[in-house]
Amino acid sequence: MSSKVLNVAIVGLGTVGRGTYNVLNRNAQEIARRAGCEIQVKAVVVRNLITAQEFLQNSFQPTTDVDTVIADPNIDVVIEVMGGTTVAKQVVLKALSAGKHVVTANKALLALHGNELFETARKHGVALAFEAAVAGGIPIIKALREGLTANQVQWVAGIINGTTNFILSEMRSRGASFHEVLKEAQALGYAEADPTFDVEGIDAAHKATILASIAFGVPIQFDKAYVEGISQLQPEDIRYAEQLGYRIKLLGIAKRAARGIELRVHPTLVPTKRLIANVEGAMNAVMVRGDAVGTTLYYGKGAGSEPTASAVIADLVDLARLLSSGTKGSVPALAFQHDSLSSARILSIDEVQTCHYLRMRVADEPGVLADITRVLADGGISIDALFQKEAEDGQNQTDIIMLTHEALEGAVRSAIQRIEGLPTVLNKVILLRLEQLQD
Amino acid sequence: MSSKVLNVAIVGLGTVGRGTYNVLNRNAQEIARRAGCEIQVKAVVVRNLITAQEFLQNSFQPTTDVDTVIADPNIDVVIEVMGGTTVAKQVVLKALSAGKHVVTANKALLALHGNELFETARKHGVALAFEAAVAGGIPIIKALREGLTANQVQWVAGIINGTTNFILSEMRSRGASFHEVLKEAQALGYAEADPTFDVEGIDAAHKATILASIAFGVPIQFDKAYVEGISQLQPEDIRYAEQLGYRIKLLGIAKRAARGIELRVHPTLVPTKRLIANVEGAMNAVMVRGDAVGTTLYYGKGAGSEPTASAVIADLVDLARLLSSGTKGSVPALAFQHDSLSSARILSIDEVQTCHYLRMRVADEPGVLADITRVLADGGISIDALFQKEAEDGQNQTDIIMLTHEALEGAVRSAIQRIEGLPTVLNKVILLRLEQLQD
Repeated sequence: MSSKVLNVAIVGLGTVGRGTYNVLNRNAQEIARRAGCEIQVKAVVVRNLITAQEFLQNSFQPTTDVDTVIADPNIDVVIEVMGGTTVAKQVVLKALSAGKHVVTANKALLALHGNELFETARKHGVALAFEAAVAGGIPIIKALREGLTANQVQWVAGIINGTTNFILSEMRSRGASFHEVLKEAQALGYAEADPTFDVEGIDAAHKATILASIAFGVPIQFDKAYVEGISQLQPEDIRYAEQLGYRIKLLGIAKRAARGIELRVHPTLVPTKRLIANVEGAMNAVMVRGDAVGTTLYYGKGAGSEPTASAVIADLVDLARLLSSGTKGSVPALAFQHDSLSSARILSIDEVQTCHYLRMRVADEPGVLADITRVLADGGISIDALFQKEAEDGQNQTDIIMLTHEALEGAVRSAIQRIEGLPTVLNKVILLRLEQLQD
Repeated sequence: MSSKVLNVAIVGLGTVGRGTYNVLNRNAQEIARRAGCEIQVKAVVVRNLITAQEFLQNSFQPTTDVDTVIADPNIDVVIEVMGGTTVAKQVVLKALSAGKHVVTANKALLALHGNELFETARKHGVALAFEAAVAGGIPIIKALREGLTANQVQWVAGIINGTTNFILSEMRSRGASFHEVLKEAQALGYAEADPTFDVEGIDAAHKATILASIAFGVPIQFDKAYVEGISQLQPEDIRYAEQLGYRIKLLGIAKRAARGIELRVHPTLVPTKRLIANVEGAMNAVMVRGDAVGTTLYYGKGAGSEPTASAVIADLVDLARLLSSGTKGSVPALAFQHDSLSSARILSIDEVQTCHYLRMRVADEPGVLADITRVLADGGISIDALFQKEAEDGQNQTDIIMLTHEALEGAVRSAIQRIEGLPTVLNKVILLRLEQLQD
């Protein structure tokens, strides 16, 4: 870093790249007052020069040649906002190996290749910063990595995908089906043409994997995450949950349990009175419970051009402040010192201990409930709440809804198998999970 | 700092001092894994050795001699958790002058003497850290100072006093009077025997003053803050606000306006649908709106032994990480570089532009409303909502409640004076302020 300027290259000029460029320019003075130096964009690397030039007008000449930019000794930081996990991985590896600090917003890249990338950064004595990779503009990485360092983190639970939270909010408020709302979300630009990454929980799982790592000091282990999206969620379960005092949110959960770490993404019943249950639309919120601090919550926009840019630039200012004080970095990338990572095991979903919501379609006959509750009792599963709807006129079947006390999911699944074998149980049993997320 | 240990002295062994001692011991391993070194308590300074020894048992020998501790070359950091602003000021000044880093939880001290203390720290090249001074365990100082550095902060608004939020929550849920709930809060230990600092908004104003400084890069100016507590708040105004879709919270507000900075603490109507309106009991929450990130919110326990200790220790870990990487600090104490502070003026309350809630006790006669609305129109104050209660049986007076659009408070106060002069207006007009706090 030259004495009074941090020189950066933006690689990728999509939504986040443009936001970063715009905010760095608009708030240049305010940022310099905080950072103690100017942050100057020295290079913008793009695939398509024409559309980039339209955006940049005559203020800046973009390039397609990433290698030259990485090799340029005047560049201090490479900002990777191109997305994807193949070319992006090569670019980040090259930049780190060339001794450049890297700031990225790429959660998929970190979830899939984080261990290798952080190790490369460490070997070359540079930073790989990623505040923007989780929950957009909310400084949740900083909160976990620096703000809550006194604590044994007990759990982290977050709404970390805006698309699915928007869809769930609409499904609930209008009683609409998943597919109906998804179409509208696509028309509004809230969901992509291929929505799989969002609606099947994969994007949330990428982020939950990163949060688990910095909360508990374990390596990044995306392949061990349990991932269940919202595409199978039925409007009637949202309604029944509401009647029981719960709202259904797609949560990314990382929890310290007796025998390991739980890492899971799935639709979750949350008490309606909790703040997080009232986070609506495309907003994000992350709860963190620590043994000293108790429960904390962080809320804001989890995506979008300038909210994400806000996080990218926060990483740049951190770097500028450090470099100008003559050090290369003091906060370990994954919160814990690299030689102090824990080997705590990620548990399988069957080993997860939690409360469950069960819905069963049953024949409206004597003895049904006795049979079902017997199976549950045999499995050691105790019931916290139960209601059976009156059969509608002319129908001889109805729904039984129950909430269990905490139980091992493996035991619950075994019980469900037996229940589905009962002749009076007419459909597959709907299984959802419930978290109290106490204050 | 010796190679592998950060040596600290705890000065004061009250609630926060004990929490800090306990958490440092209980989570020693977890903290060392994050910090990269051990944090060891080398000295505990108290006034009363007997009660301190009862708490410390035989694990540690406390002392009353703060000067010797400050002079000890083996101490790296002095943790000031004694409270008060006279002796505490001397201790902090001495420690800084002796080249010790200081971590404090003392908002009153910083609000009253912060400029002098931060200047002393800078002169001696040491840190004066204060995450614990605002909103207890919520890492709001870090969020503002480091997490949101890309932004022009537009406003900060927070529930930053748990005692008053507890009282307001109880007043609302039970329709009880301030004095009734205060007594119970005192019995429960939520309010002090002399509750003035909390209920008159002074404690919140200390914290709002600090937040304003780091949000906008202005010096600490507690004497310019407008401070109004909740002791005059009537249950009927809480009820009327509820009917209009608002909840009343004691907010600390710092806002960038065209002609300066607003810095104010007062009961505030907030839309019931906002998350912050649903923060109940003794919990704290701070909203920050930045031009890039939009609105973010930070929620958690704002006081108490271990939540506050969580923030104190976060500051220690920050220091440990920095010192072990060979630098003394890179983040400016007040978020902006000390030579880049802004001279933006703190506005008087009359210059504040906001929406207002007005309640008037009036004679139930023709023409009353015409007279009142004429006065408001003459003052350029436009009405957003209005309702007049039916007079109760046998009564010939009633309440008029109205919400204004944004208006200069000076103009509203002049109008109130004229309204109070009308013969049909029977009591002093109740004036509260309203903030939309949009997402």
